Amino acid sequence: MVSSPLIAAMTEIFSKLGAETSGEVATYIPELAKADPDGFAFAVATVDGQVFSIGDAGTRFTIQSMSKPFAYAAALDRLGRETVMTRVGVEPTGDAFNAIILDEDHNRPFNPMVNAGAIAVAALFDGEERDARTRAMVDALSRFAGRTLEIDEAVFRSEAETGHRNRAIAYLMLNSGMLAAEPDLALDTYFRQCSLLVDTRDLAVMAATLAAGGRNPLTGEVAVWRAHIPDVLTVMLTCGMYDYAGQWAYEVGLPAKSGVSGGVLAVVPGQFGIAAWSPKLDAIGNSVRAVAAIRALSERFRLHGLAARPDDAGVLRRSLDGRAMRSRRWRSPEAVARLEMQAERLIVLELHGEISVAAAERVLRRVAEGLAAGEVVLDVQRVTGVEAGAERMFADFGRELALGGQCVTIAGPGNILFGDAEDAAAGFAMAAGIDSALERAENRLLGTSPTSRDDESRTLADARLLSGLTPEEFERLAGEVPPAPLEAPAGTRLAALGEPADTVVIIGTGRLKVLLPVEGGEAVPLNGLGPGETFGEMALMGAAQRSADVVAETDVTGWSLRVDDLRAYGARHPMAMNRILGALAVDLSDRLRRVNATISALRR
Amino acid sequence: MVSSPLIAAMTEIFSKLGAETSGEVATYIPELAKADPDGFAFAVATVDGQVFSIGDAGTRFTIQSMSKPFAYAAALDRLGRETVMTRVGVEPTGDAFNAIILDEDHNRPFNPMVNAGAIAVAALFDGEERDARTRAMVDALSRFAGRTLEIDEAVFRSEAETGHRNRAIAYLMLNSGMLAAEPDLALDTYFRQCSLLVDTRDLAVMAATLAAGGRNPLTGEVAVWRAHIPDVLTVMLTCGMYDYAGQWAYEVGLPAKSGVSGGVLAVVPGQFGIAAWSPKLDAIGNSVRAVAAIRALSERFRLHGLAARPDDAGVLRRSLDGRAMRSRRWRSPEAVARLEMQAERLIVLELHGEISVAAAERVLRRVAEGLAAGEVVLDVQRVTGVEAGAERMFADFGRELALGGQCVTIAGPGNILFGDAEDAAAGFAMAAGIDSALERAENRLLGTSPTSRDDESRTLADARLLSGLTPEEFERLAGEVPPAPLEAPAGTRLAALGEPADTVVIIGTGRLKVLLPVEGGEAVPLNGLGPGETFGEMALMGAAQRSADVVAETDVTGWSLRVDDLRAYGARHPMAMNRILGALAVDLSDRLRRVNATISALRR
Repeated sequence: MVSSPLIAAMTEIFSKLGAETSGEVATYIPELAKADPDGFAFAVATVDGQVFSIGDAGTRFTIQSMSKPFAYAAALDRLGRETVMTRVGVEPTGDAFNAIILDEDHNRPFNPMVNAGAIAVAALFDGEERDARTRAMVDALSRFAGRTLEIDEAVFRSEAETGHRNRAIAYLMLNSGMLAAEPDLALDTYFRQCSLLVDTRDLAVMAATLAAGGRNPLTGEVAVWRAHIPDVLTVMLTCGMYDYAGQWAYEVGLPAKSGVSGGVLAVVPGQFGIAAWSPKLDAIGNSVRAVAAIRALSERFRLHGLAARPDDAGVLRRSLDGRAMRSRRWRSPEAVARLEMQAERLIVLELHGEISVAAAERVLRRVAEGLAAGEVVLDVQRVTGVEAGAERMFADFGRELALGGQCVTIAGPGNILFGDAEDAAAGFAMAAGIDSALERAENRLLGTSPTSRDDESRTLADARLLSGLTPEEFERLAGEVPPAPLEAPAGTRLAALGEPADTVVIIGTGRLKVLLPVEGGEAVPLNGLGPGETFGEMALMGAAQRSADVVAETDVTGWSLRVDDLRAYGARHPMAMNRILGALAVDLSDRLRRVNATISALRR
Repeated sequence: MVSSPLIAAMTEIFSKLGAETSGEVATYIPELAKADPDGFAFAVATVDGQVFSIGDAGTRFTIQSMSKPFAYAAALDRLGRETVMTRVGVEPTGDAFNAIILDEDHNRPFNPMVNAGAIAVAALFDGEERDARTRAMVDALSRFAGRTLEIDEAVFRSEAETGHRNRAIAYLMLNSGMLAAEPDLALDTYFRQCSLLVDTRDLAVMAATLAAGGRNPLTGEVAVWRAHIPDVLTVMLTCGMYDYAGQWAYEVGLPAKSGVSGGVLAVVPGQFGIAAWSPKLDAIGNSVRAVAAIRALSERFRLHGLAARPDDAGVLRRSLDGRAMRSRRWRSPEAVARLEMQAERLIVLELHGEISVAAAERVLRRVAEGLAAGEVVLDVQRVTGVEAGAERMFADFGRELALGGQCVTIAGPGNILFGDAEDAAAGFAMAAGIDSALERAENRLLGTSPTSRDDESRTLADARLLSGLTPEEFERLAGEVPPAPLEAPAGTRLAALGEPADTVVIIGTGRLKVLLPVEGGEAVPLNGLGPGETFGEMALMGAAQRSADVVAETDVTGWSLRVDDLRAYGARHPMAMNRILGALAVDLSDRLRRVNATISALRR
């Protein structure tokens, strides 16, 4: 089987970087110095839950500073942005991760990616005592990994015993009233947080959870509320890679975080989590191989977050009008003529793909033009996603429509467009599919309410199938094939797929729909039938069974003719039968032509 | 007419901010102090060239620091990233825009958004003397605005006379060998660059040019090469708003640049340029109202660049197989049976919308599975864009396919997927539309080359239309309606839409296609006809004209029967005519059923 280009590229990058042996394993905590300097792993997790990895992807190490964005996310989730902002800022500093500098103007550490900020964030975990706080912290970070993470007790003790600088930072913050918990408690949580054991796959999944808008792609669990994602990703992008942040943002362009244990994780929003691990660090404290691996992958597939985006003009898939789009509902010839006369007043806009704010603006411009001329149907059945801002745009528009007493018909799930803005719904009439949307818009153009029925009626002699007969032939037919009167209230099923086809039914008044039942799904409407039209006529050519369901859409009257009688009549009067079959062939051929035109329009 | 929610939101924000009167007009250049402190404008330009504005959008002012990203873009375009990087870095500094600090480690200014960096960039414009350099600079920036910008000579003189600090910076850089031109020349260009006159609409268009990947949406001219967009946007995001950069990235999340004349411009990649102007500045030097206006618009429509993106799972619109998708080419019943038996081996993947790297990975996973089972058709006709990295992914995949002697059939413009990677094309067989793509894939499943013809042949007596006749009836028909032998080489047009329909043609060998001509476009294929099938039969029911074009797809033999003779035969032998009309009705009805099923599949 052909392999994925992603895996192929990862493999190539991985083997090329095997030759890269520069850097030094971190030694400032004795436990870290024990790591295998040649260890190397590379992993990608997709937002749909695929994890690809290569190398020592199952080797565990402590998460260290890579825990910081997740702890920050947990704080935002628990306390909200406003409160968290009083405790820690979002300004990058040009200084090292362990610098003892604080934002004196705002009385807080500069950002949550430097140690001071991370300790301030660790202080925010819930709980008055160690164990409860530890549980809260472990739970929060485990949700991102999709499994319960464990603490490396040896590393924790080593951190706690040697973390004098961090202790100094904590007391300095206490001194300025910046810390939400006792320094010892805050540091305990912080050291334990840094001592969580992860492997490279875990890191990729944690990053993928951020990429997926906060929902863990393996477990489906929400690890952080979607609204906080930009906050977390921004501080990662501007402050996540220590002094290398500017260059990283420029060259790689992905929110990322590194740790002294040799890991780096990066987020491609909406797409992937990427992680790499190799213990040897460069002078700034980032893993040499991990940085190189992620940078190479970003370059290879242009993952830079500010890369030029393709124009999304194509979100408007097609713009059609009433000449191309007609509902399958039966209409009287008079109604058809009236619709045809104003076909250009019925605008159907088919949207597809993901709708950005700019795309929404473009679409709504077209909708406004369409409304000025007549009726607009927005077909959203192919829409795959709507950006939050575009949702707001549709909601605003809906409210304005409602105020002006106007309305756009939506085919498909309308709330994909405007979310839960209920007051916007009044500006949109929702229809389950394009057919009922078209029917509604046509009704509005015709000026009839959707429930009114067409008053057309036909006599048996006027029925399309029999209209070619001479008066004598018709009279003879009425005598030899006695028509049984038919009356069916709306909703009656007049025929069902597979039933014996022993009658031909001719409609006098009312409307029918012809439907193809779908196993386990909703029946597919094929076409409508009205006064003067017929079903069951294929039985004349030997069809033994009904080929579809037929249901009365309104109250219906008509006539039922027995197939056996009709065939006997044909044998006795072949010239008359020629005229019946000829009328049938013309009718079928007309339908086929219309339907082929529709197919061509739909395939476009 | 209903107004755009974008305009409505801009209007609301604009009028709300009218009450905001804090801040001070910049006075460090005497000319700037003359600005109307109450001036206020707000503009948005879309990547498709719509410009919306409100307030004093035509009032001109000098561009000042907002020129910096565009001068940087021009330098990247002329010299490439590598050379430019030797002259100016990309690291944010926590310092003010006019700080005299340089990156001593790399012997360059920190970034092109601080004055030192911007002077270093201005030094890079082409030319040995003032005027040529001025022209190069004006040309470069004018391409972004879409009109020729003019220099405010009074401001230029004022800048030149009072810019002692900038002069000091230039000489300091000269001292360290950081400057590519004479300080006086570099400063001359820099001061003129800052003195270009723009209005708020210009700024929105300049930002929109960056949003549109470097192509000016008004003029269509390329102002900067697409590949440099992420570089320019990154330094804007991390360094564009002076000391406020971190907070701006966090709260607004858009690459932006402000200037002391009171303007701010921001880029929503792929979507909009936004600009606002009001001369009163805050303590950091950013316009109070302009910052507030852009922030409000970003919040309203969630324009944050790192906002959670909708999952792009929907790029795979449908996955169908040979049960739902059949080419319109005529196939012998034996071939149809063989295709039906292996219908599950023909996979059609319909893509739509914009393809990200993650989406490409997902699609290619499905393609690889499909290839393991049989033939894969990728329908790309609804694809609106492919990210650069996704393009590379398809290119990689194509190369691997070609190496393994495998091939995927693409319906639509294949190079939308893999760009100009010509060596990848060997792994993809391109077909103009879904029909020819299906035909190719079916041919491969059948093991015949696309050019081979089906060897099926039918006698006149076996023709579908006549197959219900008794031997006696057929013999009589052959006598009374003498069949004229027909031979047509491939490519012959046997009938044209609107021509008189005076013959019924029955095929003995070869294949025809029925096409609907489209004014000014390619004819739409309706269906194929093969041995035993007929065209022109509707003339029996009185159709006077051909309803479509009919073209020989291969060499064709058959018979032509005169309609008048056939009708006369029918009048003499009505029972035989009943059988002919019955066969016709069955045939039409079968086709109608198949075509209706296709419509239902296509509407889904």
